[in-house]
Amino acid sequence: MSVAAITTLVPVVRWQPDARGRLERAALELYAERGFDATTVAGIAERAGLTERTFFRHFADKREVLFGGSPVLQERLVAGLAAAPPSAGPLAAVGAALATIPETLPEERRAGAAQRQAVIDATPELRERELAKFAALTAAMAQGLRERGVGEPTASLAAEAGAAVFRVAFGRWIGGDARDLGTLLAASLAELRGVAADG
Amino acid sequence: MSVAAITTLVPVVRWQPDARGRLERAALELYAERGFDATTVAGIAERAGLTERTFFRHFADKREVLFGGSPVLQERLVAGLAAAPPSAGPLAAVGAALATIPETLPEERRAGAAQRQAVIDATPELRERELAKFAALTAAMAQGLRERGVGEPTASLAAEAGAAVFRVAFGRWIGGDARDLGTLLAASLAELRGVAADG
Repeated sequence: MSVAAITTLVPVVRWQPDARGRLERAALELYAERGFDATTVAGIAERAGLTERTFFRHFADKREVLFGGSPVLQERLVAGLAAAPPSAGPLAAVGAALATIPETLPEERRAGAAQRQAVIDATPELRERELAKFAALTAAMAQGLRERGVGEPTASLAAEAGAAVFRVAFGRWIGGDARDLGTLLAASLAELRGVAADG
Repeated sequence: MSVAAITTLVPVVRWQPDARGRLERAALELYAERGFDATTVAGIAERAGLTERTFFRHFADKREVLFGGSPVLQERLVAGLAAAPPSAGPLAAVGAALATIPETLPEERRAGAAQRQAVIDATPELRERELAKFAALTAAMAQGLRERGVGEPTASLAAEAGAAVFRVAFGRWIGGDARDLGTLLAASLAELRGVAADG
């Protein structure tokens, strides 16, 4: 096959500086301005100064553009579980994994996270997608615990407890609690332990 | 307005012995046989020996027919929270509420519950609906705890912990654990307390 023939088989991917981030920001703006249902992929691409084709190189659909961070978050949580000291109990290992979350969600992302959550909360379709992402995250943590040798049902219970702590701490963070996310995660975990010790 | 005129305004609802239960069983059979996507409301009504109109008097759509028990379950959980002794801590009150679940899901419903879960697990659309129902149940329990005077974030954490216990115990029950659901709920709650005390 000639070089020219091979070239026609390879899609030309033009490099767009931070195309992914521009699409995410454009989508968030439009969902907040017009609502999710009234926003199209074409509109998002236009706002970002990119093409629809570029959009679909990065995201499967207009829901996914809001959940681009999920795989990274999940990967880091699972890595955090694996990196916890072997002596750590299941919930302590989950706590170590949760402590990695602020790397993905640093303080400067708080306002954007709150804006994103408002869009999700306003749209049943997005709430469903969020619940599915959360269930996948919880399942991945349970799997990570089983890989540490934790049996069932302990692995599932510890993973679910961790997911609850994450949800509560994240809600406080985007709700305007002055503490940073790492502090809120640690505080919520301690509170969960207190709740479970109520006799 | 004459009696005749009024009569024309009132839909004639023919009484069908256990129409709701027959529709639920017919739907479950067809989802298991043909899959959810290939099953129509017309098909469910036909299998149940009823009309489509009767189906829509009982259920909003073909997803809802699998979740007909949710409002009763939620109502009983909230009533169980309210009925727990005032001295009970948040998680103990949640435990008292969970102990009412076997009234809704007695032993004779185990096989049907397992069959229903297999259908849900096979269909992303149904898994999403299930997650939404569960999130609503958890929110209702948190609200019930706040009505007992429990503050936040304790109410949310205790409700989430209770939801985790329910999910795990239910999974063991339909997974064939020999113990009854009440025993599994109590055991899973004790295990969650153990997980949270791991230091």
